[in-house]
Amino acid sequence: MNFTMEEAIEVLERTPEMLVSFLSELSYGWLTCNEGDGTWNASEVIDHLIEGEKNNWIPRLEIILEEGEAVPFPPFNRYAHINEQNTLPIKEKLLQFQSIRMKNLAKLKTLMDSYAHLELTGTHPAFGKVKARELISTWVVHDLTHVAQITRVMAERYRDDVGPWKEYLGVLKQVNK
Amino acid sequence: MNFTMEEAIEVLERTPEMLVSFLSELSYGWLTCNEGDGTWNASEVIDHLIEGEKNNWIPRLEIILEEGEAVPFPPFNRYAHINEQNTLPIKEKLLQFQSIRMKNLAKLKTLMDSYAHLELTGTHPAFGKVKARELISTWVVHDLTHVAQITRVMAERYRDDVGPWKEYLGVLKQVNK
Repeated sequence: MNFTMEEAIEVLERTPEMLVSFLSELSYGWLTCNEGDGTWNASEVIDHLIEGEKNNWIPRLEIILEEGEAVPFPPFNRYAHINEQNTLPIKEKLLQFQSIRMKNLAKLKTLMDSYAHLELTGTHPAFGKVKARELISTWVVHDLTHVAQITRVMAERYRDDVGPWKEYLGVLKQVNK
Repeated sequence: MNFTMEEAIEVLERTPEMLVSFLSELSYGWLTCNEGDGTWNASEVIDHLIEGEKNNWIPRLEIILEEGEAVPFPPFNRYAHINEQNTLPIKEKLLQFQSIRMKNLAKLKTLMDSYAHLELTGTHPAFGKVKARELISTWVVHDLTHVAQITRVMAERYRDDVGPWKEYLGVLKQVNK
């Protein structure tokens, strides 16, 4: 096991600022390009991250702490943000993400005030029994997977522009998963 | 063709600041984890980006502008930074990258002062004829591919920690390319 609460928080608290540096005031072309029908652009990925802060990580952790395995997590709708059509400019979306993330990290520290809490278990609707520390680890890797997604989506826009170099660029060999 | 000089520069100028936000003061564990023997950790990726600023992008562009197709680019050693063993702390490496990138972008704007320059051609040692705009597009996608790599390497560290969620996390399904 590599997980520690301190190191997990290190990544979780850096993601919003990193995305601000990466995406703020980028051109429309970069923010709206995607990998084809039904795939997300960078701006929609931020909507999804906000949705996770509202309805996934902390709410599920609270269910683990309050209900244990007795009450399964409500399913998280990974497409909720698409239906909601958040039309805010990217900079405001990023600040919204940053604000809710910081509140959630403060809450995380309050909720998980003993090592024993990390081993508490809940019931995932698809996987069954899961541990609090698995949920928090997943929160971290979920950030990383979506940063990777944004870079892949943006790289795709220049697939033809790089000419023969595409052979050397790993990010152009990954598929939408 | 999606490439424009303005939009390419948007990404190139954001990468250093994004990496500062992402990696500065991260724990040793995050900065030194890799994907196994012969693979790079986050800190080594920064060394490679610095190496590219010194010996790849602008030097090759200068060869295109000065020599055209007559003189092939010298091969770029993708492993040079591994032999050099840069032992600076990550924050200093990131500032070094930021500083040389900003100088190179200033140079790029001076060198490429007409649209006609984008269509100029040079000789790549493996690919043969390449255009200046393909080289600059590749510079952009090269940034993106290495940000994707860092997220993948860090995610790998928590592969077992996420428990059953690994099924949902695309970044854990990508292989080292």
